[in-house]
Amino acid sequence: MFDLPSKRQIKLIKALVQLKNYRKKHGLFIVEGLRAAEEALNSDYSIEFLLVSDDFLHRHGEKIKKYGKIKTYMVPRKEYEGLSDTETPQGIMAVVRMKSFELEDLCEENFLIVALDGIKDPGNIGSIIRTADAAGANGILAGKGCADVYSPKVVRSTMGSIFHVPIIERVDLLEVLKELSQRGARIVTTYLGADKSYFDANLTGPIVLVFGSEAEGVSPEILEISSELVKIPMPGKAESLNVAVASGIVLFEAVRQRSVSFTL
Amino acid sequence: MFDLPSKRQIKLIKALVQLKNYRKKHGLFIVEGLRAAEEALNSDYSIEFLLVSDDFLHRHGEKIKKYGKIKTYMVPRKEYEGLSDTETPQGIMAVVRMKSFELEDLCEENFLIVALDGIKDPGNIGSIIRTADAAGANGILAGKGCADVYSPKVVRSTMGSIFHVPIIERVDLLEVLKELSQRGARIVTTYLGADKSYFDANLTGPIVLVFGSEAEGVSPEILEISSELVKIPMPGKAESLNVAVASGIVLFEAVRQRSVSFTL
Repeated sequence: MFDLPSKRQIKLIKALVQLKNYRKKHGLFIVEGLRAAEEALNSDYSIEFLLVSDDFLHRHGEKIKKYGKIKTYMVPRKEYEGLSDTETPQGIMAVVRMKSFELEDLCEENFLIVALDGIKDPGNIGSIIRTADAAGANGILAGKGCADVYSPKVVRSTMGSIFHVPIIERVDLLEVLKELSQRGARIVTTYLGADKSYFDANLTGPIVLVFGSEAEGVSPEILEISSELVKIPMPGKAESLNVAVASGIVLFEAVRQRSVSFTL
Repeated sequence: MFDLPSKRQIKLIKALVQLKNYRKKHGLFIVEGLRAAEEALNSDYSIEFLLVSDDFLHRHGEKIKKYGKIKTYMVPRKEYEGLSDTETPQGIMAVVRMKSFELEDLCEENFLIVALDGIKDPGNIGSIIRTADAAGANGILAGKGCADVYSPKVVRSTMGSIFHVPIIERVDLLEVLKELSQRGARIVTTYLGADKSYFDANLTGPIVLVFGSEAEGVSPEILEISSELVKIPMPGKAESLNVAVASGIVLFEAVRQRSVSFTL
């Protein structure tokens, strides 16, 4: 009922799982797991094909039928495990075409954009994408020094949010922030040495919230052009927060302020 | 200059890295890495001994000398790697004695306590401990269904905060929350189905903030006895947040409200 994948397709999957440059070159990435695959299928991303393991098909055949238009290949469980990036794979992956967004796509009225500078941990990037999605952010800018947004680990950590929020990656963050500033956005940058607390800053109106890596922080050139530097005041003894947690704290303060100004 | 550890000590380390029950039985746990070991040494936790690799000693011998009172053993790099729980170990670990806290230790005036119900992911537990420390929380209660607070992964993810915040683990959360309620605390529990947003709740005064697992949420019995159920409103498309991010959002709203009421 389902074809076996060709050798070329197997090779494609292996390369997409492992090689960042291969993903870029072909504009494709891999999404694993039923829930994430369904998010992809229900989004306006285009799916090249699905790969499922034989045992997954036995358990979830009905679900796969629903997606009849998408070409689906099947491999034995053992072979699927060799291709998967996860330790205990569910047995379904989708090969998805990347979408490319322009800055305009992110600039809705009163936009809220998240910019990431040099964030290297895939789990943190994925978690920030998920959190930005939850907060209703209009988009994410990932600077050149960030980990690859389309790596299997990042995609997995987004829990499907990668299909909800426009992401522009490998941007020259300094240039793009300057441009957004000219479009009327305030650039609000988190900085451990700031005087002002994030909750004392105005986070309504068009803004870009900038987060740097835990080790290095945001680069000096970006601090320089920021409209406002804010810190998260820490009354306790910890010296810093995990960057995904920090982004959640500031993003949801923006949500709070925006919901209040909306109510008024 | 430094002794080799005995076979018994090597066996002890192996067991403490791997076995939860062994950690409980002996009341000991392992901390790895220079920064975390220094946090332990500078805290009022008692250190049984340090274990360093020969190459670490060559690089950081001066630092080790500072801790002259603490018995330090040395092993070749290769042997250290076999004992370590990390992939690229720095070459220093401390065997630390657990401290046991009573509920009284957490109940300072206007206390802020974090309670965890069934949170199984070690990275999330560690990140919550770190965040609670940053927020100046008075203590953490980990219910019986949580992952072991003293596992190497949790300890590592706390980034030293495990030595800053009193933690009571394996508690019968329902009973302890009832007791805290009788002591005048409001039990504020996060619940996806709540009507009220967390920022509309009063988070000043003595409170316990309760967080459940992403999969299961907080157990019905605890929802039942809570003073208030709150949700994090999510204007975007994501259905949920990572629990460590969610705890950061609510904890720092408490910090915000408390700093405002302090200023007034």
